[in-house]
Amino acid sequence: MRGLRLGPGGEFDTLRAVFAQLGSAGGRDLGDDCALVSLGARTLAISTDLSLEGVHFRTDWLTLREIGWRATAAALSDLAAEGADPLGVLVSLGVRDRGKRTTDDAVELMAGVGAAARSVGARVLGGDLARSPRLLVDVCALGTVARAVRRSGARAGDALWVTGRLGGAGLALRALQTGRRLDAGVRRRFAHPVPRIAAGRWLARHAARAMIDISDGLAGDAGHVAAASGVAVTLELDRVPCWPGVAPLGAARSGEEYELLVALPRRFAERDARAFRRATGVLLTRIGTCTHGRGVQMTDNGRPVAPPRGFDHFPAR
Amino acid sequence: MRGLRLGPGGEFDTLRAVFAQLGSAGGRDLGDDCALVSLGARTLAISTDLSLEGVHFRTDWLTLREIGWRATAAALSDLAAEGADPLGVLVSLGVRDRGKRTTDDAVELMAGVGAAARSVGARVLGGDLARSPRLLVDVCALGTVARAVRRSGARAGDALWVTGRLGGAGLALRALQTGRRLDAGVRRRFAHPVPRIAAGRWLARHAARAMIDISDGLAGDAGHVAAASGVAVTLELDRVPCWPGVAPLGAARSGEEYELLVALPRRFAERDARAFRRATGVLLTRIGTCTHGRGVQMTDNGRPVAPPRGFDHFPAR
Repeated sequence: MRGLRLGPGGEFDTLRAVFAQLGSAGGRDLGDDCALVSLGARTLAISTDLSLEGVHFRTDWLTLREIGWRATAAALSDLAAEGADPLGVLVSLGVRDRGKRTTDDAVELMAGVGAAARSVGARVLGGDLARSPRLLVDVCALGTVARAVRRSGARAGDALWVTGRLGGAGLALRALQTGRRLDAGVRRRFAHPVPRIAAGRWLARHAARAMIDISDGLAGDAGHVAAASGVAVTLELDRVPCWPGVAPLGAARSGEEYELLVALPRRFAERDARAFRRATGVLLTRIGTCTHGRGVQMTDNGRPVAPPRGFDHFPAR
Repeated sequence: MRGLRLGPGGEFDTLRAVFAQLGSAGGRDLGDDCALVSLGARTLAISTDLSLEGVHFRTDWLTLREIGWRATAAALSDLAAEGADPLGVLVSLGVRDRGKRTTDDAVELMAGVGAAARSVGARVLGGDLARSPRLLVDVCALGTVARAVRRSGARAGDALWVTGRLGGAGLALRALQTGRRLDAGVRRRFAHPVPRIAAGRWLARHAARAMIDISDGLAGDAGHVAAASGVAVTLELDRVPCWPGVAPLGAARSGEEYELLVALPRRFAERDARAFRRATGVLLTRIGTCTHGRGVQMTDNGRPVAPPRGFDHFPAR
């Protein structure tokens, strides 16, 4: 089955098997960012992303508008990782029954959804709505793609590059968890992640071999690329572009960054990265390599580094 | 905005306005069963259907497999009402954290989802999964359609026809609510609704002018067709095909029937209905007419009948 996303929590690892087994009735490739469906000359890319109050967000951390934006950006980020061009989103909302204020809540959530969709030229196509004791936002994002960039296409010899700077989301999360005041830039990074649609399309047009969005953290998602592509990955921590105040190991662990990790052939050079930045306004940094083998290794100035605590060297695809 | 579905409860009527307002950024037609997106020579039909424990289903009424089937059938029923050919479904699941049994719950739900999808030749394309204190199943169904049959195409002079027999779902619901034993046939009708995909495609090929699935009850959905099409509708209660033991007024009120209400030109005759039945195995019965005007009237053997309690003569589109 394609297009599977797994929520946080180790207990869900076994559920990959559930979806894989049931997926035998349907798609073959478990665990790409999007489901891909051929439709005449076009390929449709579809991703769905469920956000639940108390699991994925807290209403004392984010406004409803930010919750709507974030849920939509997460689904669009999956399209970005395929190099897809978004068409639109369908949104299922669960909102608390608060009498007249029920409408206000739905308006606020949908304002965030609509703004995130419009920011990448997508439309709100439809949705569903129900009363729910906890807020929920489920976004299904649709796009088209000329050449889908799967997570499985990396080859030995490819370099790994990453967009943007990592660690801001983790920094925000720790501040929120400990009740510390959030710097405006860090808050914006957490509450208004920008789906890397233009970046993903540029990279798809420029020889990207494999791509994934960094929702599980750099180390974790590098592991997904390694497992899916059948290569070993070495991440050079000293090269990882970090958010101010974040150490490289923290940046490599920070989840929900919604940046892109991309495998590019060796011929892709620093001057190409500068062209990327001119075209998209986004930083692109070489941070590792793919070799024959399996699993993820990390180095710091050439020396091996112990992986983050709880890090799975050989995650499932 | 298209493809909007509204959950039960009068307080949500105002939310139509919310979606309509936000929809101005996107689609133009509020309230069709599916969102429709032109994609080259094809039109994509997409519908999303959210089912929440305690709102749309109870785990002491249905097995998890039945809950998965029912949620998927509801989304597919929207495709049927456009005359669409299903491609596949994406499914977001929220399951309780029950340790090792968490996996069993997801397997059971997905078994029902997979069976419902396969029953109409569709695939499970992808999904998302999260821990949730209450079960939830959100199904996004995708299909293609050569000529979408909207709810807005009925004209004065058309006849209204309905597939199947109505009232079984309401009968089951009342038995479940009052703790009475369910007849096996009635239980199956409630727990395993059959999405009328083949019926919808046949009708789309045979001059269907407007179509809607009966999820809000015959009277309510006839009102949606009347409002969207700008016609008046007269339902002839004495012609409504009823589930055994259900009176016509009960059949006209019964929701979540997942049968199709279709406006067909006057030339569509009883012999055409017999051809439909030979092709699909499903009953098709003429139950009303469209005339100039607005709203819904009901008659019983030609005499006007008071509408069901709480029935809105002029519902929103």
